[in-house]
Amino acid sequence: MNYPNKIKKEYHKNINYANRGMDLENIINETNEYLLEKDIALIYKKPTPIGVVKVSYENNKQIINKAYFATQSTLDYNGLYKGKYVEFDAKNTNSRTSFPLSNVHPHQINHIRNVIRHGGIVFLIIKINEEIYLFNGPDFINFVDNKKRKSIPYELIKEKGYLLEYNYIKGLNYIKYIDIIGGFNNEEN
Amino acid sequence: MNYPNKIKKEYHKNINYANRGMDLENIINETNEYLLEKDIALIYKKPTPIGVVKVSYENNKQIINKAYFATQSTLDYNGLYKGKYVEFDAKNTNSRTSFPLSNVHPHQINHIRNVIRHGGIVFLIIKINEEIYLFNGPDFINFVDNKKRKSIPYELIKEKGYLLEYNYIKGLNYIKYIDIIGGFNNEEN
Repeated sequence: MNYPNKIKKEYHKNINYANRGMDLENIINETNEYLLEKDIALIYKKPTPIGVVKVSYENNKQIINKAYFATQSTLDYNGLYKGKYVEFDAKNTNSRTSFPLSNVHPHQINHIRNVIRHGGIVFLIIKINEEIYLFNGPDFINFVDNKKRKSIPYELIKEKGYLLEYNYIKGLNYIKYIDIIGGFNNEEN
Repeated sequence: MNYPNKIKKEYHKNINYANRGMDLENIINETNEYLLEKDIALIYKKPTPIGVVKVSYENNKQIINKAYFATQSTLDYNGLYKGKYVEFDAKNTNSRTSFPLSNVHPHQINHIRNVIRHGGIVFLIIKINEEIYLFNGPDFINFVDNKKRKSIPYELIKEKGYLLEYNYIKGLNYIKYIDIIGGFNNEEN
């Protein structure tokens, strides 16, 4: 997920949830655009951080001539829903049996702890076996802290996580589960 | 304020508030580091968005060979304080008499409206006449909507804004005023 938005912006508007080639990041970006448009939530993808090595000037404008993609020390998406802070990341795994913890950088794990401690809503969106789950931050941290295993079994993701549904217009229905994990009472969603 | 963190990271640890050369962005970054270290708030600067034009590969690693700095459609800093969403931007003006509204992009103004409507805390940190003020989002939007003027007079910034103090160790004391504008009761800060 190291491409900046510009490159990834070849949206597949007719994307099919069941499609193996489905790009999780595009689906989330489309969902966030829908939520923004309908004034439901303000969620943005943070720009990919880069390390600039060389800059030149053309007509008084800066041009980057050498740079590299860096890793985010927080999660990729954050924003605001009903006054509350929301942050999450999207993670893919090709494994059919489990989600390797190595997919989440140690500084991201630390950041998830921080967000929980400060009262924010934080979770992972995990794509495994062509299904997409919202896996709540506290459940993730519990697993990291209490288990000796290096990956979360698919069965546990199914048990603890919320299976997300995809709608062609509305995108993924994570707002429904943010209402649940955030303790909001809301019949609308 | 178009440099990514990497370039700007030549911190002036002995920076003096009265110093004309004081860099507002560095001071805010240092303040956020202090707040993170002391576990008071989680506030990060969003990476500067870039538009990538050309990418090559070196040892299987992507190298950006051409890119340009893009403008943020949201504000530069956001995060979490006492469960609440906080967002702000830092703005400098060389004018001694007023802060030109042209310093805030129309999409940023729109975003400020959105954050207010969704219950977040949003403000500008304005440096004018070597003083630094926290200017609350709703006051800013009021001015934009009700006045026909294209810049906020210094006198109004002094009247409506909160003059921030700089401390060598703690940085700027904006948390104190976030407590006020966010309606938190807190004697600690």
